[in-house]
Amino acid sequence: MKASGFGRHAHRGALATAALLALVTSGAAYGAEPDRAAIQAQVTQRHDAAVKTLQDWIALPSIAAEDLNAKQGAEYMAKLAREAGFQHVEIVKTKGKPGVFATLDAGAPTTVGVYFMYDVKQYDPAEWSSPPLEARIIDKPGLGKAMVGRGATNQKGPELAFLIALQAIRDAKQKMPVNLVLVAEGEEEIGSPNIADLVLRPDIQAALMKSIGVFMPMGLQAPDGSVTVNLGAKGIVELELIADGNAWGRGPAKDVHSSLKAMVDSPAWRLVKALDTLVSEDGNTVVIDGFPKPLPLTAEERAMIAKTVAARDEATARKSLGVPRWIDDLPWGKANERLVSQPTVNIEGLVGGYTGVGGKTILPYRAVAKIDIRLVPPMTRDGAVAALKAHLVKRGYGDIAVNVSGGYDPTTTDAKSRLIQAQLAVLQHSGVEPLLWPRLAGSYPGFVFTQPPLSLPSGHFGLGHGGGAHAPDEFFLIESSNPKVQGFDGAVMSYVDYLYELGSTTSGPAAAN
Amino acid sequence: MKASGFGRHAHRGALATAALLALVTSGAAYGAEPDRAAIQAQVTQRHDAAVKTLQDWIALPSIAAEDLNAKQGAEYMAKLAREAGFQHVEIVKTKGKPGVFATLDAGAPTTVGVYFMYDVKQYDPAEWSSPPLEARIIDKPGLGKAMVGRGATNQKGPELAFLIALQAIRDAKQKMPVNLVLVAEGEEEIGSPNIADLVLRPDIQAALMKSIGVFMPMGLQAPDGSVTVNLGAKGIVELELIADGNAWGRGPAKDVHSSLKAMVDSPAWRLVKALDTLVSEDGNTVVIDGFPKPLPLTAEERAMIAKTVAARDEATARKSLGVPRWIDDLPWGKANERLVSQPTVNIEGLVGGYTGVGGKTILPYRAVAKIDIRLVPPMTRDGAVAALKAHLVKRGYGDIAVNVSGGYDPTTTDAKSRLIQAQLAVLQHSGVEPLLWPRLAGSYPGFVFTQPPLSLPSGHFGLGHGGGAHAPDEFFLIESSNPKVQGFDGAVMSYVDYLYELGSTTSGPAAAN
Repeated sequence: MKASGFGRHAHRGALATAALLALVTSGAAYGAEPDRAAIQAQVTQRHDAAVKTLQDWIALPSIAAEDLNAKQGAEYMAKLAREAGFQHVEIVKTKGKPGVFATLDAGAPTTVGVYFMYDVKQYDPAEWSSPPLEARIIDKPGLGKAMVGRGATNQKGPELAFLIALQAIRDAKQKMPVNLVLVAEGEEEIGSPNIADLVLRPDIQAALMKSIGVFMPMGLQAPDGSVTVNLGAKGIVELELIADGNAWGRGPAKDVHSSLKAMVDSPAWRLVKALDTLVSEDGNTVVIDGFPKPLPLTAEERAMIAKTVAARDEATARKSLGVPRWIDDLPWGKANERLVSQPTVNIEGLVGGYTGVGGKTILPYRAVAKIDIRLVPPMTRDGAVAALKAHLVKRGYGDIAVNVSGGYDPTTTDAKSRLIQAQLAVLQHSGVEPLLWPRLAGSYPGFVFTQPPLSLPSGHFGLGHGGGAHAPDEFFLIESSNPKVQGFDGAVMSYVDYLYELGSTTSGPAAAN
Repeated sequence: MKASGFGRHAHRGALATAALLALVTSGAAYGAEPDRAAIQAQVTQRHDAAVKTLQDWIALPSIAAEDLNAKQGAEYMAKLAREAGFQHVEIVKTKGKPGVFATLDAGAPTTVGVYFMYDVKQYDPAEWSSPPLEARIIDKPGLGKAMVGRGATNQKGPELAFLIALQAIRDAKQKMPVNLVLVAEGEEEIGSPNIADLVLRPDIQAALMKSIGVFMPMGLQAPDGSVTVNLGAKGIVELELIADGNAWGRGPAKDVHSSLKAMVDSPAWRLVKALDTLVSEDGNTVVIDGFPKPLPLTAEERAMIAKTVAARDEATARKSLGVPRWIDDLPWGKANERLVSQPTVNIEGLVGGYTGVGGKTILPYRAVAKIDIRLVPPMTRDGAVAALKAHLVKRGYGDIAVNVSGGYDPTTTDAKSRLIQAQLAVLQHSGVEPLLWPRLAGSYPGFVFTQPPLSLPSGHFGLGHGGGAHAPDEFFLIESSNPKVQGFDGAVMSYVDYLYELGSTTSGPAAAN
């Protein structure tokens, strides 16, 4: 998930509106109430083996950007699905890394989609305090014993917890409350370039069409135990803007001595001048020609933000981020409204010419800006790319290459959908106050589920806690010493409860939201 | 020397104006005519030992940027000076790497200053076709046998050729025609930050004040044998512009997730916006507030440029540089006038945030532009830095750090000076048509000699040929197979002839130009 720690854990406390919470019910159950104690006993019994399996999985990192272990990762993913009880498990070829498609038919009236990623982010072992593939159990003061390893929380820990839930239900001889359709990809960390081809293969699409929505397991608890339910996420485009003398037909075709600047044009300056046209003078407002205006926040969304923000300490957030003031010196609430509602053009990196220590008197033939553009409705990935390209052409920078490496549209899911309502119900039953947040500022490829042809609700769910996604010392909590936060077994039970809730909840809108 | 291969070898063919050449004389000699054959015999006899010495010197690279071999390099330099007959040889401490000061008193009426560098540019052996410190002799088709090694032509080869000339004169029992004052530095490749402290130490300054000017040995011949005599060089400032959230008090103090761009300011965008204010839309005209206008070219300078340009093939120059067209689609002559006359702000490098393969969703806290500014009269290094800083403050970018790493003022020397006139005379006597070029677009620290208090002529001289300065496979021609170009011994003899010419030339302006 391309979400910041901030996006994932900072926006806590939004009280769901009464109107939304009123939808939460524990309506007529499908079949008998499960024997939760028997399931819990299975979870406890499986604990050590599950921890070992998670360590084995972490020891096999699949990294699409490095062309590492895609085949092995997909095979391992398929094996885990089979062990969890999926009857049909299939490795699916794509134009990139293979996906995995699996179905579990419980003969239930309700079908639920599940989205997994089996790939992980790159890592540099030198930056870690314990080896990133050894998945050691480390004591985290105030939390408990956590597994430290690449992929521990993003996303193998929560995903395995979900699979263990299925095994526990089965081995406790309880009725599986829902049918499941699982789609796993191996390219999430490079922007899911082939997710649509995978999900919309006719038989996979048909299987998902029967579901009430698609969710991804995630350890959503903050250290205070709270859980934010996100009702969507921004879209993203990641791309490089490349100014190159060869493409331009001006400037040098290779690096030349900098004294020649007096008679030779500079691709690096051209990049700077082109970049300058994309955002306002303060760098904060997107001014790309033809970029649609973001939809204004609704009163309901403003209310969600206001309540969450009131419950959070601004000074703590500023300190943890090292940000002394927000854009335009906005107050905390307005800054968060901006976070939720505004698109961005961000410079991830600048690289051109000599990048070592000191200087080197060259006129570089090429310079690159690594850019991410975050999108809110009604923007789309393709629309944003087309607008950017047209903007550059119109401004006379048509030679600057726009190399898109990944991205997808924004995602929006109705809070009234069964997928979300069941989450709120489980959280309430678990003693966790459910919070709602209009739109994650980070991004994930939920668009493939929420947009036509599927038009399904999509979101994340799970108790438990992790941290350090994309960073060194990524971890997932295994044994909690914090009464407000669940460890691995508690995360497993949150999926058990969610599945039974999804199987029993009958109110709220039907499948499509 | 911070000159491009282009600057050093491309501007050939400028016919000196008749008025200047008319000054060339072989006036009344100091003492008897030397026995040139006896000196030549000494040069031939010393050839193998000289080649071995050059290899030994190249095997000891002094690199100030890497804090490598400064002490050893200065000691080796001093040893070479003693062996060449300098009576006083002294290693001079500076705030940086040590210099070497040496004098040779021949009891002659004329004293000549000599500027050396004993340091060399950094190198990456992986980029070389032979080991850069082994100084192997390699056959270069069309040229002959060349020594390939770091420092071969920039500047150890020409410098050693000059020192061998002194030994040959002495051992041929010929009268040394001039007194010599040698100043060698070990920081040329980092912009000579302490050259003024070295040269203007009272006793060194006093010794140089007696000279008619200061020259640096250099293998100036192009493959067609021609030599361009440069009458000056642009000044330079090398610096980094750094936008940093910590200094700004806005944006993050460390890299944060890029989704936060919607509420957090971006130092990378700030750098882009500040850079944008420094040059015109096409990136080619300096628009820094308070930057003085360059002096227009004189008619004489235009004539020099026109004649050189007419003798050169534009298509060959464009092809060798990979430049399909010059700034503003200028014709060849106007492009060269621009090269000589205009200041530049060049981006050497851009580096900020994530610079690896693909993207990484961060909002970097810091971004850097590596800049060089080339200066023409009446600009000065200090004036340029002050104008840049004031400009940034005025435009509201006072938080952007201006970290100057080196630089110096422009250099101008009168073509009528004895230093230059003697060069033209030697070239004519050698059958090389002397060419004049108003100002090298590259830079060297001649300002310390040409400006007060010394106010001396300064330039470069020497036959012979080299290439690849600052690049892989740097070389200096040892045995020429090209009748138009001198090898090592011919380079040595060019210094013999230059010293006798300087000792004998009596016309032209006196010491100070």
